[in-house]
Amino acid sequence: MTDDPPSPALLPAGLSDLLPPEAEREAALVEAMVAVFGRHGYERVKPPLLEFEDSLFAGSGAALADQTFRLMDPVSQRMMGLRADTTPQVARIAATRLARTPRPLRLSYAGQVLRVRGTQLAPARQLPQAGIELIGPDLPEADAEVAAVAAEALAAIGIADPTLDITLPRLSPALLDAAGVEGEARRRLARALDRKDAAAVQALVREAGEAAHVLPGLLAAAGPAEGALAALEDAALPPAARAIADNAGAVIAALRARAPGLRITLDPVEFRGFRYHTGVAFTVFGAGATGEIARGGRYMSGEECATGMTLYPDALLRGVPPAPPRPRVFLAFGTDPALARALRAKGMATVAQLSPADTAQSLRCTHILDAAGTPRALKE
Amino acid sequence: MTDDPPSPALLPAGLSDLLPPEAEREAALVEAMVAVFGRHGYERVKPPLLEFEDSLFAGSGAALADQTFRLMDPVSQRMMGLRADTTPQVARIAATRLARTPRPLRLSYAGQVLRVRGTQLAPARQLPQAGIELIGPDLPEADAEVAAVAAEALAAIGIADPTLDITLPRLSPALLDAAGVEGEARRRLARALDRKDAAAVQALVREAGEAAHVLPGLLAAAGPAEGALAALEDAALPPAARAIADNAGAVIAALRARAPGLRITLDPVEFRGFRYHTGVAFTVFGAGATGEIARGGRYMSGEECATGMTLYPDALLRGVPPAPPRPRVFLAFGTDPALARALRAKGMATVAQLSPADTAQSLRCTHILDAAGTPRALKE
Repeated sequence: MTDDPPSPALLPAGLSDLLPPEAEREAALVEAMVAVFGRHGYERVKPPLLEFEDSLFAGSGAALADQTFRLMDPVSQRMMGLRADTTPQVARIAATRLARTPRPLRLSYAGQVLRVRGTQLAPARQLPQAGIELIGPDLPEADAEVAAVAAEALAAIGIADPTLDITLPRLSPALLDAAGVEGEARRRLARALDRKDAAAVQALVREAGEAAHVLPGLLAAAGPAEGALAALEDAALPPAARAIADNAGAVIAALRARAPGLRITLDPVEFRGFRYHTGVAFTVFGAGATGEIARGGRYMSGEECATGMTLYPDALLRGVPPAPPRPRVFLAFGTDPALARALRAKGMATVAQLSPADTAQSLRCTHILDAAGTPRALKE
Repeated sequence: MTDDPPSPALLPAGLSDLLPPEAEREAALVEAMVAVFGRHGYERVKPPLLEFEDSLFAGSGAALADQTFRLMDPVSQRMMGLRADTTPQVARIAATRLARTPRPLRLSYAGQVLRVRGTQLAPARQLPQAGIELIGPDLPEADAEVAAVAAEALAAIGIADPTLDITLPRLSPALLDAAGVEGEARRRLARALDRKDAAAVQALVREAGEAAHVLPGLLAAAGPAEGALAALEDAALPPAARAIADNAGAVIAALRARAPGLRITLDPVEFRGFRYHTGVAFTVFGAGATGEIARGGRYMSGEECATGMTLYPDALLRGVPPAPPRPRVFLAFGTDPALARALRAKGMATVAQLSPADTAQSLRCTHILDAAGTPRALKE
């Protein structure tokens, strides 16, 4: 479609229009993914865009409080927030209106979230989300299910070869606890792990207790899941870290059983950006330069154990090859309505002439009807 | 689904959660309608939820300025609004990024709008909208097309027998102008027409110029389109009013050609609530108590003529009979994944057992697999 460059002042930074054909493509991607969720028993909920900040910032929602647009409700005189994430709202629904529905509770959602500020790398302030939450069980099988269902949803929209990166955000803290690394030493070691600065980690663990001595090896072991699991297996881990490692092994084994073809990497000591996760955390990357297309993992949904995955349709839109455009058939005055209906039933668009000035070209049609009523492609 | 009554303080007044199965039903209704729009050449756009109030309140948007949530943009320090209607945003897109796309321009949209306050009759403050805009032509055929396409979208979701009520918001003002009715007399007559108070209208037109003398007759003529058109035909109308009446006749004739079965009523002197309409205005009612399910008509999209229709999925959700629930098949441990895939491909949900505690009943399944792998319905 003709697309004049937008005036820079037209829309606020990070807010944009989706034009044809992208708006239709994004909606189709979302509905195709939610349909996959539904076929695995995940039932759709639709929380409102605005709610009281008390409930929005409860639990995992606290992490996004300073990214949330806030508004005074003129009716109640209480502060409301425009949701910056959907998971805290699903947690509220699970804990209140669906409190008596038996667990496991499988819920899905799709909609928009808004953020006060974008970042240089991710400038958008309105983001579409589609996701699932599996609330109740504290089981590796549950984590494996949400990752496998997400992978199936991605396959359904043509993202054939994603990589699931698993991190264990509680493992490094457990090792630092056991090694007695605290205060400034802990901050420095955390920063070095964050930056994957192997030399700095190596230097810093020398002064730390024995439990931290496995960190350089585990940092180096990040990569394909089986290799990283073997490194965890061989490492001398204190009990809390061993339990985390064993759980990771169980999640990956359950995933191998459900999604044998899925490429899985494991980064045992990575923990940045997963503040509220209580078990495995997931990041899904698309092939090539698509980047991050989903995020998830285990967390607390109010008082309940939960695991889930959020997919990013805006990133997916960039990663999925465009579908062939829908044929547009020019409907001249007097075309038989039954014929037009039949063409629409076959998935074509029929574009009606409203005045003699309308031509197949001015209506951007790709096809005209010949004397027999058969659509013929127009030359470009 | 188990649905505990919500705590009244949980969500702000007029904001609510859609639970299973309603959230899925609403999304399905919206996508089915937008698909019909697409098959008539209406291409989807997705404007952001938030934009600068300057553009949001331009043109037809001014009517909703005091119903719009306003926010300071921390990035630009300018005021933004949460959209209370989508049509002004589509007008902005048409006038800017799609300014060079040939007219007629057919666009569709679907999304949420927010209002500062609900009314006693319509308490919701977040409303879904799905609609079409036909921008460029000032032709009765264009008005007829948007009404006929809307009716087809309603038929596609099972609203089989809607009534299209056409009003002519400029007719009464044209008659009062011609009759020289001004000031307090005009306000009183407008109020009487608003209330459909035939006796008061009769009394008030006695003191007015001759052009107003047709008002009682036209008030009484509201009803099936053909009768009301005949009354307009017979009435002694000044030229401006005659042009409005002739245009209404042409729109209705074009509609009869496109949608022969559609029930059409015409209320020539009604003009309440259509402040920015420049030609025919539409209200669509569902059968029974469903109430208003769509609104539209002719307006100015910036500097361009336009006509459009907005459908209300929340009202449609109440008017469409619920679909039969999707079968939920219990997947016990060890069920063949290929069998599960085949069931999902048939549209069933497969709900996996994650622990021995999960039973067909606790997972709210409707079917279990027999020894041959065939789903068997569970007794209620």
